[in-house]
Amino acid sequence: MENIEERKYGVRKLEISDKSKGFIELLQQLSVCDSVSDRDFENRFRELSAVGDDHVIGVIEDEASGKIIATGSVFIEKKFLRNCGKVGHIEDVVVDSSARGKHLGKRIISFLTEHARSMGCYKVILDCSLDNKAFYEKCGFHNKSIQMAMYFAHN
Amino acid sequence: MENIEERKYGVRKLEISDKSKGFIELLQQLSVCDSVSDRDFENRFRELSAVGDDHVIGVIEDEASGKIIATGSVFIEKKFLRNCGKVGHIEDVVVDSSARGKHLGKRIISFLTEHARSMGCYKVILDCSLDNKAFYEKCGFHNKSIQMAMYFAHN
Repeated sequence: MENIEERKYGVRKLEISDKSKGFIELLQQLSVCDSVSDRDFENRFRELSAVGDDHVIGVIEDEASGKIIATGSVFIEKKFLRNCGKVGHIEDVVVDSSARGKHLGKRIISFLTEHARSMGCYKVILDCSLDNKAFYEKCGFHNKSIQMAMYFAHN
Repeated sequence: MENIEERKYGVRKLEISDKSKGFIELLQQLSVCDSVSDRDFENRFRELSAVGDDHVIGVIEDEASGKIIATGSVFIEKKFLRNCGKVGHIEDVVVDSSARGKHLGKRIISFLTEHARSMGCYKVILDCSLDNKAFYEKCGFHNKSIQMAMYFAHN
């Protein structure tokens, strides 16, 4: 049973054709995101592809509908601290509202943390609301500190 | 008076010669960091230089002693969210313990946030302990969420 689920809801890297599979609409469930033009999407996709394993976006495609129903990204920060160590930063994790309860979020997080580990990171971090703390604890994270933000007026 | 201080404690970008000016020893005040070999330092310096304005490390050098007495870094994350928006991530901010009270931390943060703004970021974020919340509020930040972390055993 696990193997069937594994195949059905496996995580793969974002592909350029995923724009037409609802990738942007999925992100809109997370935060402000107008529709993105094909050109802007392709430019950003190529910018991220150029850094290779230093920035990876995972997605789960629902085979039945052909839609992207879960995603999350991780990028690798290179430091001088920790003996020139590396840190994985997880961002923009979202599961389609119609696909909750299938542990897809956990699959995405596992894919991203394993990528960070394989890149030699000494830790992986993320910011989340207090509401999501318990979910990330189940994924093996613990609360470390607080996040501060400053928004710029030009956007 | 402000101009004299400005010249004396101006922020500039990290240079490869800053290793011999106590840059790594300064980082050791923040977190675990063994001594870094010249070769490892130069390799990491070149890796970061290769991404140009996407990863900037600011430093303040004390003219009298020739030592680096404050530093902080910012790197630019490129998203699909927020209409292919960009976010500045501030990391590894530290002021030498002998140079506290001169508002050097504020100068570093101002340098890093201005860099993020000039790069077209819609926000700049950082993680800190509860103890440093008031400092970052004075710098114009507000508490947004919590940070979760997972440490890997291989380090």
